[in-house]
Amino acid sequence: MKRHLGVAILCLLLIGLLCSWPRLHAVERPDEDSVATEIKELLTEQVGRWNAGDIGGFMEYYWKSDDLTFSSGGTTRRGWDETLRRYQQRYPTPERMGHTTFSELEVRPLGDTAALVLGRWQLEREPDPIGGNFTLVLEKQDGRWVIIHDHTSQLEQPASSD
Amino acid sequence: MKRHLGVAILCLLLIGLLCSWPRLHAVERPDEDSVATEIKELLTEQVGRWNAGDIGGFMEYYWKSDDLTFSSGGTTRRGWDETLRRYQQRYPTPERMGHTTFSELEVRPLGDTAALVLGRWQLEREPDPIGGNFTLVLEKQDGRWVIIHDHTSQLEQPASSD
Repeated sequence: MKRHLGVAILCLLLIGLLCSWPRLHAVERPDEDSVATEIKELLTEQVGRWNAGDIGGFMEYYWKSDDLTFSSGGTTRRGWDETLRRYQQRYPTPERMGHTTFSELEVRPLGDTAALVLGRWQLEREPDPIGGNFTLVLEKQDGRWVIIHDHTSQLEQPASSD
Repeated sequence: MKRHLGVAILCLLLIGLLCSWPRLHAVERPDEDSVATEIKELLTEQVGRWNAGDIGGFMEYYWKSDDLTFSSGGTTRRGWDETLRRYQQRYPTPERMGHTTFSELEVRPLGDTAALVLGRWQLEREPDPIGGNFTLVLEKQDGRWVIIHDHTSQLEQPASSD
């Protein structure tokens, strides 16, 4: 009987462990602050590439997939290659690329592997500074955050730079 | 010894079950198609409310929170009350609300509890039909999908209605 009691206790312990598995698993989830910090650092790196005149480097932070989507001005473009082509067309020289800042970044984790990011962008250049806001959706793929969707809007009256 | 062997086998079985828990749990996850179907049905209901002239009903599909965000035209508005107020201001009568259709809806689940939705909108009314595209982020809260962020853009040249 003692042995049966031992087996029963062991079973109960294991069942308890089994039931607590999702809870243990949940503890491992990255907290909101660390996700926000990671993503803000990444976007700061990305805008640094832009300001170095490196559109290819800037594009490294986007999902290299035909399923990447980029919405602006009421239309949606598809695919990494098309997004790069569009950037190269709109910003053919370092002068047109100007100097960009991102601000008011807000990161909202969506589960463990995705995040919603809102922010403002301001592109200083002569003679036509422009600015507006963006919505980004990032996904963690193979341990790395990538932008899978970008919806960018431009203010009709760009914010002044001061 | 036989009893020890029995205990060992039982332990191995339970450990096996324990290790397969995340997999079993994964099987319970809703598949992409069912999430897409649920959300498309919900947005069809929502646009039905709009077309019935019921802005309050249309707003039921948005997160009732001060953290709801609605981006358009380069700015972001915050909160359910402000979003409702903005809709009521822009669309004060059933004539101004016109008849809206959503099309080209694409749903991408983000984990189990969030989804990214892209789509087009077309608002038929006289004399100024308008249209464009939107990005929605939905979250499943208490078993119900709610729109937590909306980024809507308007085409400068609205698509014709035919």
